[in-house]
Amino acid sequence: MQRPLRMARPDPWRTQLSCYPFTADIPTRWADLDLLGHINNVSMAGLFEEGRGRFNRSLELHRGGEKVRWLIAAVSLNYLAEAHHPHDVTIASGIGYIGSRSWTIVSGAFQKGVCVATCDTTLVYTDASGPVPFPDTFRPKLEGMRTTR
Amino acid sequence: MQRPLRMARPDPWRTQLSCYPFTADIPTRWADLDLLGHINNVSMAGLFEEGRGRFNRSLELHRGGEKVRWLIAAVSLNYLAEAHHPHDVTIASGIGYIGSRSWTIVSGAFQKGVCVATCDTTLVYTDASGPVPFPDTFRPKLEGMRTTR
Amino acid sequence: MQRPLRMARPDPWRTQLSCYPFTADIPTRWADLDLLGHINNVSMAGLFEEGRGRFNRSLELHRGGEKVRWLIAAVSLNYLAEAHHPHDVTIASGIGYIGSRSWTIVSGAFQKGVCVATCDTTLVYTDASGPVPFPDTFRPKLEGMRTTR
Amino acid sequence: MQRPLRMARPDPWRTQLSCYPFTADIPTRWADLDLLGHINNVSMAGLFEEGRGRFNRSLELHRGGEKVRWLIAAVSLNYLAEAHHPHDVTIASGIGYIGSRSWTIVSGAFQKGVCVATCDTTLVYTDASGPVPFPDTFRPKLEGMRTTR
Repeated sequence: MQRPLRMARPDPWRTQLSCYPFTADIPTRWADLDLLGHINNVSMAGLFEEGRGRFNRSLELHRGGEKVRWLIAAVSLNYLAEAHHPHDVTIASGIGYIGSRSWTIVSGAFQKGVCVATCDTTLVYTDASGPVPFPDTFRPKLEGMRTTR
Repeated sequence: MQRPLRMARPDPWRTQLSCYPFTADIPTRWADLDLLGHINNVSMAGLFEEGRGRFNRSLELHRGGEKVRWLIAAVSLNYLAEAHHPHDVTIASGIGYIGSRSWTIVSGAFQKGVCVATCDTTLVYTDASGPVPFPDTFRPKLEGMRTTR
Repeated sequence: MQRPLRMARPDPWRTQLSCYPFTADIPTRWADLDLLGHINNVSMAGLFEEGRGRFNRSLELHRGGEKVRWLIAAVSLNYLAEAHHPHDVTIASGIGYIGSRSWTIVSGAFQKGVCVATCDTTLVYTDASGPVPFPDTFRPKLEGMRTTR
Repeated sequence: MQRPLRMARPDPWRTQLSCYPFTADIPTRWADLDLLGHINNVSMAGLFEEGRGRFNRSLELHRGGEKVRWLIAAVSLNYLAEAHHPHDVTIASGIGYIGSRSWTIVSGAFQKGVCVATCDTTLVYTDASGPVPFPDTFRPKLEGMRTTR
């Protein structure tokens, strides 16, 4: 039986910290641990959310209107090694795909220099009518933060 | 520019409750809401974790030894609609891919009859040496809980 | 050395389910467990929050204006026994102290019929200017849901 | 009606950072916010848990045996001001009450120099038989970290 594509491991460059233009050190919390004694997989998704938020603030994208919301359409996580507490996790982020109404933030989580997980997050720009093109001012800022491989 | 494969929406059957052999109703919590007033995407990953745990207990797979652990290798989530509190979320689960050392649980989250998210989780069977084949007794139980499309 | 008052155990009636006028069954989640294998003390505070929210909705108090917020001024928890997963926790609630600008919700958490924790929560009614008297319509509804001992 | 003792505000010295012998800066997370746009009261309990854990590690108390557990018997929180994200919260901690089988950690949460909350946590030393006296080596270490007022 063929292994489905979604199970493919991330591209090797994804585990290189230097390929990401932005990093944020996120202290882990004891509460991030689960019964197995490692950072829980859902907690790791939370660490990615926090690192992503800091990346988004660094982009200084003007949100674009009162009814505008950026909704998360997809999150894809690969867990490569166990992460532990109380060491920090460094969330490294950059831009992958850029469409007209959506874009993808690609991130890696590093602990003690080792990539422990990767995360791809697809954001969709919406107003009250649903997905709409994001402002032209977004594109150069997104382009400027692409990952390098 | 080509949209990468991982951004593809889930197959239509994935949004049909009847395609999954197991369901668990999980009450949402007020704490699952975020500032946008809907169930947060990380919280939704937590609801899937809870539904998956109930599915796993229903399988009655013998864990297989003291040093054995089932590690989560990948989680892929698609968010299709906003979910709210205080309504329950039904997490429907079944088995997708079955390998020799790993298998995939495919799940859908439903609220008021609408599929609000899907989740694919890849589990790897490991002992102290790393990934190893899971016991033969697993296969018929996993096969017996495949999704139907 | 004198044991300070705050360490006093709760009054015996607080561990009697029948003394509370309202109950809500809250399923525990695997994520509520901590490394010690029991429901974490902070997670238990979250279960009380959820039960309190259901109690508040049952009271049907009109919130009272756009700038009005009910702020939590104090939460006091006593842990009497360990709680576990996957069993539900029943959060029983009633009204204790009623002031003019604040009131106290007293709650007990029960698992398999045993009181595992108690929680006292003091709420303060505020508008943009700070704490203000709550509407007259609140008092009979609060009085009607007092605990009985 | 008499306002119950537990609603008393904390002693004024409790809001002075300089009265605590130990501090830990804990970054807040976006997920700590609730619908009201401030750090949720349960999340604040989690920040205290994290600061308390760092304080405990700094004490270098030998745990004292395989079956020994320190259980939390009581947590009492006062919320004095709203806390926000993305600013750090400083959790300041010291020892309050010292008994023979239990002790109390008193903590304050500070944001931008303002005390936003206080927390008293009572720990009980237990082995398989229940609460037992903690080792003699604990006392001087606990005494050495008392708060000063």
